[in-house]
Amino acid sequence: MDLHNRRTIRKYASTPVSDQLLKDLLQLAARSSNTGNMQTYSVVVTRDEKQKELLSPAHFNQPMVKQAPVVLTFCADYNRFTEWCKCRQAEPGYDNFQSFIAAAIDAIVWAQTFAVAAEREGLGICYLGTTTYNAHQIIEVLHLPRLVIPVVTLTLGYPDDMPELQDRLPLEAILHDERYHEATKEDIDRWYAEKESLPSMKQFVAENKKETLAQVFTDVRYTRKNNEYFSNVLLEVLKKQGFLG
Amino acid sequence: MDLHNRRTIRKYASTPVSDQLLKDLLQLAARSSNTGNMQTYSVVVTRDEKQKELLSPAHFNQPMVKQAPVVLTFCADYNRFTEWCKCRQAEPGYDNFQSFIAAAIDAIVWAQTFAVAAEREGLGICYLGTTTYNAHQIIEVLHLPRLVIPVVTLTLGYPDDMPELQDRLPLEAILHDERYHEATKEDIDRWYAEKESLPSMKQFVAENKKETLAQVFTDVRYTRKNNEYFSNVLLEVLKKQGFLG
Repeated sequence: MDLHNRRTIRKYASTPVSDQLLKDLLQLAARSSNTGNMQTYSVVVTRDEKQKELLSPAHFNQPMVKQAPVVLTFCADYNRFTEWCKCRQAEPGYDNFQSFIAAAIDAIVWAQTFAVAAEREGLGICYLGTTTYNAHQIIEVLHLPRLVIPVVTLTLGYPDDMPELQDRLPLEAILHDERYHEATKEDIDRWYAEKESLPSMKQFVAENKKETLAQVFTDVRYTRKNNEYFSNVLLEVLKKQGFLG
Repeated sequence: MDLHNRRTIRKYASTPVSDQLLKDLLQLAARSSNTGNMQTYSVVVTRDEKQKELLSPAHFNQPMVKQAPVVLTFCADYNRFTEWCKCRQAEPGYDNFQSFIAAAIDAIVWAQTFAVAAEREGLGICYLGTTTYNAHQIIEVLHLPRLVIPVVTLTLGYPDDMPELQDRLPLEAILHDERYHEATKEDIDRWYAEKESLPSMKQFVAENKKETLAQVFTDVRYTRKNNEYFSNVLLEVLKKQGFLG
């Protein structure tokens, strides 16, 4: 798959992903930009069935975790860099929020370059947004130490399915020339018209017994209650792993 | 440039970047994965010389900001999605930390896919890590409203320079099989040996009058004092923009 026709893949063929290819792609992706060339990131590779079973609840039992041949948990990691400092008579100062954000950015840049490189090789990926919801469970299963936090998870394998291309907002909705321009009601109507008119989205609204597509998001998929609950959980994880005072 | 030989580009030719190419690459990159297909991100394009002058101090006057033909500020953006909800009788609940993190991840994934696509077209990019340090200044210059926070900035243009490939840690340092394995002193020595032996790094240590390379990072480049100061600034920005209670 190339960038213009890529799809998120949620069903994988039984074809194994070779260890050498996986390593080559991870090393290739590590050529991406990163802050000060500190490489404050790590990935944990899960292939073991028992480990997948332990990881699965952290991802709300989404079937990709057990079905994909490989699960990759990309982490913001200041542990290794801090150890290096300690071994070299240097006083590390990376147990703070700004260091977490910088490390998280670099981990995500690495993960997404990996995703692009993997898709170029005919592999398919799916991002699991559950990673930051249940980071505490993932930390336990993967034995992540202080100053390491999982940020994004990718399931990986050869596609067994080629879903339809998903809609995207028109570019004018996401691009701002020189200054941010807040959306007017007319802008909103124009930008969301295509999405709201799709049969799949209309079905989604009907199945959830809602009046509008937006209500499916606010009342079912991404609710205030869940967002607030998992915000507190994540802030606690940041404290526990040493990134927040 | 392809993934395996890419370099961060800090000096740009005067060749302009066409508006159509820029738009095509941003739309192409928006085919990347994103949470729930909500596309909770925006980019502000800066080409105007006066705007560059205003942005420059936020990036500690790094010369790329004024020298590059284009500066792109990628933002986590729940403002547009929230407006859509309000226009559609839905009660949005995205003024919280978890929503910020999800939007930031999607903005970074989009930015990095853009970077890869741009490099494939012969363009060069540089990430400015200063974006989260001085987010408040960027918010002011770019008129970013509530629920919008700048996360990464790319400077963009045709390369006028082809720097040496930078070193990277061996893969074993950043890859963990099934479980995280904390580094031993022997691991640290082995993983950092190449970096520490490079003439450019030895020169860096000498110029900064330090004993070890790690001390250049802890005492000069990424100090505890700065990290803690900019952590507080960023947490205040999160509160001000509505993502933290």
